[in-house]
Amino acid sequence: MTTTYDDALKALYIEWSSRMAADPTMSIQTMRDMQEAWSTAATEPEGASYADVDIDGLKGIWCIPQNADPQVAILYFHGGGMIVGSAASHRKLAGHLARAVGARVLVIDYRRAPENLFPAQLDDGVKAYQWLIDQGYAPGKIISAGDSAGGTLSLGLVVNLRQLELPLPGAVLALSPGLDWEGLWMINEDTDQLAKKAVIVMMGGIAFGERSRTDALTNPLYADLAVFPPVYVAAGGHENLLGAARQFLDRATAAGVDVVLDVADERQHVYPIAAGNDPEADRTLSDFAAWVRPRVGIE
Amino acid sequence: MTTTYDDALKALYIEWSSRMAADPTMSIQTMRDMQEAWSTAATEPEGASYADVDIDGLKGIWCIPQNADPQVAILYFHGGGMIVGSAASHRKLAGHLARAVGARVLVIDYRRAPENLFPAQLDDGVKAYQWLIDQGYAPGKIISAGDSAGGTLSLGLVVNLRQLELPLPGAVLALSPGLDWEGLWMINEDTDQLAKKAVIVMMGGIAFGERSRTDALTNPLYADLAVFPPVYVAAGGHENLLGAARQFLDRATAAGVDVVLDVADERQHVYPIAAGNDPEADRTLSDFAAWVRPRVGIE
Repeated sequence: MTTTYDDALKALYIEWSSRMAADPTMSIQTMRDMQEAWSTAATEPEGASYADVDIDGLKGIWCIPQNADPQVAILYFHGGGMIVGSAASHRKLAGHLARAVGARVLVIDYRRAPENLFPAQLDDGVKAYQWLIDQGYAPGKIISAGDSAGGTLSLGLVVNLRQLELPLPGAVLALSPGLDWEGLWMINEDTDQLAKKAVIVMMGGIAFGERSRTDALTNPLYADLAVFPPVYVAAGGHENLLGAARQFLDRATAAGVDVVLDVADERQHVYPIAAGNDPEADRTLSDFAAWVRPRVGIE
Repeated sequence: MTTTYDDALKALYIEWSSRMAADPTMSIQTMRDMQEAWSTAATEPEGASYADVDIDGLKGIWCIPQNADPQVAILYFHGGGMIVGSAASHRKLAGHLARAVGARVLVIDYRRAPENLFPAQLDDGVKAYQWLIDQGYAPGKIISAGDSAGGTLSLGLVVNLRQLELPLPGAVLALSPGLDWEGLWMINEDTDQLAKKAVIVMMGGIAFGERSRTDALTNPLYADLAVFPPVYVAAGGHENLLGAARQFLDRATAAGVDVVLDVADERQHVYPIAAGNDPEADRTLSDFAAWVRPRVGIE
């Protein structure tokens, strides 16, 4: 399919890549500031409102749509290699997701690397998950969601909860998940304008340090997938991580998981961040909502 | 009065000043990215929702509180020397203002310098003002508001409308307004952690180019103030621009204007941007609301 739309996200990624190439010693702080502009990709999700959350020092934002199902919550891990990105940069995407599903979304500002190496990010995820349960949400009514490295975490949360012998969430959403820290299955090095192999391998080096890239937490591709609840994976047709997403689909299917892979033609990494501006972003959120609602009991 | 509160805004300004000092050739883009962190100073104003606006190419955000008076609108000019800052960086402040007053706030992304020299910013303000009138808001029910260089613009809009023989707004809010581009009345060079004399003079040079710093549009201190509607000025007790704010109070009072100067002890430039986190920010927004509501006919 040939699509004709204003690919502002692609232009943003080209700008970032160009700035990083021009400034090879760009500081982490400057990179973080730069990539906060993810927040400019989506429209304001009308009708949604927001509230700050502080879970014993772990900050986050509730994105609250009108007519939310009071029993369902989505725990959202933002992308950015566990190094950049924030709840704020993903607020509008989370608001669109909240509106589509009809449920509140909690976007957490998990501790970032390099100040906090992996698995601090997952530890914060478990903390937020347990807090949601303390707030009265049943595990099966919680959706673990995230994009890019946040997709590593939304899937990794399941692995971690299993290790901790805690109840699993009702479903998982992984948008352009980071499941290829070694660059084994990359297929769109030319068309992907942000998640080039060298960038992903470099970011993994910062986030994971000396830790193995092939354990079940750093890369849930290596996990025992049979235990997983339903999983919805989405990836852009022009992104490098589509290869790993297909690996996940194959392995999860073989393990008997209720799994979907949604591929959006010609789209870039984390294309749903352009929700409201890109019809494919909206289509993915809408399709995910239709898929997940019966799985968490929203009528 | 000695206040004891977590002055995170002061810490943010010290960080920015330190980064600018360490990188004297910092690009405009990096500076813009950095100062988007103004958005981190306030809490999420709960209950407020948002909607994008596109006024024939001029973008903005409606900040919509619950129970807004449908007849009243606040037109908001963000700060940042007309160079940095955005509707997004000031969204939460605008949301708190909207909640306090009980009226919608339209924050506009006016064209910034150096790409667009002054008075492009005021031209965009006039355009948004006329659009509000087209939407059905009576001029006397519109409040012109802004902070820092946005305060120059919220006051300058009145001067410009008068020149254009257009009806004036019902009231003006000017938070830490930029009324001293030459550095004539600065009084807190040591305690002000951001708006040092050299920074303000430098930013004026970028925004105004060869234009005079003493005409009634670049600095409304030099305007015929007698024509002004009611004006509420606020300034931090530790900021440099407090001196010019006092000049404005004296000149406006002498001209018979219904004017107030609210000075917040020990506070930094644009301290209301920490709304929800700083009690003085909330107190100023609350006091402004009580002052302005009868002046624009909110019961």
